[in-house]
Amino acid sequence: MRDPKHPGNVRALPITQPAAAEPIAHGGNLDAARERFPGAPEPWIDLSTGINPAPFPIPALPTEIWSRLPTRAEEEALLAAAAIRYRVRNSEMIAAAPGAQALIQLLPRLFPKSSVEILGPTYEEHEACWMRQGHRVSVVEDLDRSDRADVVVVVNPNNPTGRIIPVSDLRTVARTLAKKNGLLVIDEAFIDVLPETASIVAELPPATIVLRSFGKAYGLAGLRLGFAIAEVSLATRIRAELGPWAVSVPALSIGKAALCDTRWLAGAVIRLESDRQRLDAMLQAAGFTVLGGTPLFRLARHCEATKIVENLGRHGIHVRSFSREAQWLRFGLPGDEQAWDRLAAALSK
Amino acid sequence: MRDPKHPGNVRALPITQPAAAEPIAHGGNLDAARERFPGAPEPWIDLSTGINPAPFPIPALPTEIWSRLPTRAEEEALLAAAAIRYRVRNSEMIAAAPGAQALIQLLPRLFPKSSVEILGPTYEEHEACWMRQGHRVSVVEDLDRSDRADVVVVVNPNNPTGRIIPVSDLRTVARTLAKKNGLLVIDEAFIDVLPETASIVAELPPATIVLRSFGKAYGLAGLRLGFAIAEVSLATRIRAELGPWAVSVPALSIGKAALCDTRWLAGAVIRLESDRQRLDAMLQAAGFTVLGGTPLFRLARHCEATKIVENLGRHGIHVRSFSREAQWLRFGLPGDEQAWDRLAAALSK
Repeated sequence: MRDPKHPGNVRALPITQPAAAEPIAHGGNLDAARERFPGAPEPWIDLSTGINPAPFPIPALPTEIWSRLPTRAEEEALLAAAAIRYRVRNSEMIAAAPGAQALIQLLPRLFPKSSVEILGPTYEEHEACWMRQGHRVSVVEDLDRSDRADVVVVVNPNNPTGRIIPVSDLRTVARTLAKKNGLLVIDEAFIDVLPETASIVAELPPATIVLRSFGKAYGLAGLRLGFAIAEVSLATRIRAELGPWAVSVPALSIGKAALCDTRWLAGAVIRLESDRQRLDAMLQAAGFTVLGGTPLFRLARHCEATKIVENLGRHGIHVRSFSREAQWLRFGLPGDEQAWDRLAAALSK
Repeated sequence: MRDPKHPGNVRALPITQPAAAEPIAHGGNLDAARERFPGAPEPWIDLSTGINPAPFPIPALPTEIWSRLPTRAEEEALLAAAAIRYRVRNSEMIAAAPGAQALIQLLPRLFPKSSVEILGPTYEEHEACWMRQGHRVSVVEDLDRSDRADVVVVVNPNNPTGRIIPVSDLRTVARTLAKKNGLLVIDEAFIDVLPETASIVAELPPATIVLRSFGKAYGLAGLRLGFAIAEVSLATRIRAELGPWAVSVPALSIGKAALCDTRWLAGAVIRLESDRQRLDAMLQAAGFTVLGGTPLFRLARHCEATKIVENLGRHGIHVRSFSREAQWLRFGLPGDEQAWDRLAAALSK
C-alpha cells in the first residue's frame, strides 16, 4: 500500500484517480444562472433540463415512510411494478438505484479495464465515469462494428440530439459484443415518452445493460430513482453492489404508485407531444433551426445563441448551452401558461 | 476481457466477484417477522433496529422538492449545517450520501487490495463490503497495534455491544496507520446521542474517515442520508465517486433543517436516556442481563432468548437476534406508551 511519491499520506491510497478532472456542465443548476443575472425577475423559469414540468401528483404520504428503513417487500413491489411498466419478463432482472446517475457511477467499477466506445456527442457523465475508473474511452460518431471496443455506450434517444438508434441495430452490436464477452450499455433515460418499440428492454439481448430514469418522464427528479435492467446474474450483482436500503422509502412508495399508473403516463405523453410542437413553433418563429430532441427537450441552433442566452437570462429564463457547440441551445418545456408567455416575450426581444 | 470459463457470457466480465455470498441478517425487516408469526396482532412493534422512535418532525414540504434536481447550493447548505453540527472545521471535508450504508459500499472500492482488520463482532456490512471488493479481511476482538493491517475499521460506539473506544486510543491507531499510508475507518452511526467528546470528528487525525448516519438519531431512516468526513482531498474524491445529485431534495431539505435544530436534538438525547433506563429496568425485571448498547438500543442476554423471540413474535413484537450469539437480543426503544405496555405484557408471559 506504500506509495513512495506520497509517504505518510492517505492521498497515496486511491488507485483509481480520476482521469477526467474537468467539471461537467449540467442543466438544472439555477444557482449559477441567478448569480450571473442578479437583476433577473423571480421566479426563474428553468428550461435547462429535460424533466417533465407537469409531474406525477405526489400521493398523501404517511409519516412513517420517513422514519423506518425500507423493507425488502417494498423494494420487491417497486421492482414488480417496474417490470410490468418496462415490459421486463422477470423483476429479478431489475436493480433500483437512487437515480440513474448512481448507476452510471457504478457500472465502470464492475468491469475490468476495457476499451470503451461512447456514441456521442452525448450526456458527458458516461465518458467521465468510465475514464475516472481507468478505462480507455473514445467518443465515436457512429456505431462502430469493427470489433475494437469491449464496451459500447449508447444513449437512446440521445441527449441532446434526440438521435434514435433502431433496436435492430443495437441487437447487432450486442451480438458482436456478446461474442467477445463485451458489454453494451443503453441509457434509455428519455425513452418513456416514445413508442414502446423504441426500447430494447422487452427482449433484452445478452451482454446488455439498460438504464432507465424515473424522474424525467414522471417529473420527479428530486426523488432520485432509476433502474438498471440486465440478465438476472448481472442485475443481482448490481443489487449487491448498491447494497441494502439504496432507495428511500418515499421513492419506493411514490415510484411504485407512478409506475402502476399507465393512464397518467398516457396523458403525459399526449400533453408532452403537444407542448413539444408548440415549443418547436415558438423556436422557429424566433429564428431557430430545431435540430432534434425528444418530447421532453428540444435541441435548436441559432447563430446568435450566445446573445440569446444572455437575453433569456436577463428575463429570468435558464436554458442549456454547450461549450463545444456554441450555436446549440437545449430547451425544456415551459410548465404553465405564464412560463410560455414569458418565454415568447423574451424570445421576441 | 475474455474468460475461457464463461465464453460468450457477460457474467465473465466482473472482476470483483463477491467473496462473502452469505446474506446478512439486518434489523428492520418486519416482512419476515410477519410471515413467521401470521397470527400476531397488528400493528407490529418493530424493536429490531436502533432508530429513534420519536423522529424529527417533517417540516411542510413544497411540491417542487420532488420535481426538480438537487442544486449545488442545496448540497452546500446541507454540508455547512453538517459541519456545524458535527464540529468539522471545513464543510469541504464532508461528503453527503444516500445513507451511510452507501458509503460502506463505496469505501472498499477506493483503495488497493489491502489487509483489513475490523473490530468485532460488529455491524456485518463492513466485513461483507470489504470482502466483496477482494480485500483480505479479519475480524479482531481488540484494537491491534502490531502494524499488521493496512485498513482498520472501528464502529464507535459499537453495534450491538455499545463498546466505546476512547478517542485517544483511536488517535494512536490513526498515527500508526498514517505512517504506513494506511486508513482508519470509524463508523460513528450511533454516536449522536453520546457526549460530543466521544467523537473524533472535531480533531480528525490524518488517514481517517468517519461515517455519520443521519437517520438513526433523528429517527428518519427512510430518508436515506449519511456522511463521510475526511481530509479535503479524500472527501472530494468521495464526492466525485458518489457523483452529482446523490442525495434527494427531500433529504437535503429535511436533513439541513434537522441538523440546524440543536434544541430538538438536546431534547431527544434527554428523552432517549430516560427511555433507555426504563427499558433496562424492564429487561432486568424479565430476567435479562443488560450487556450494553447505546441509548438507541440495548443488548441483553437471556439463556432462553430463543423462546423469548418466539413469545414476543406471537405478541407482534420484533427484536433482533444473532445467529452467532444465541443468548443475545437487541432491543430498540418502544415509541409510545401502548408499545411500552405491550412489551411489558409480552415479557411478563
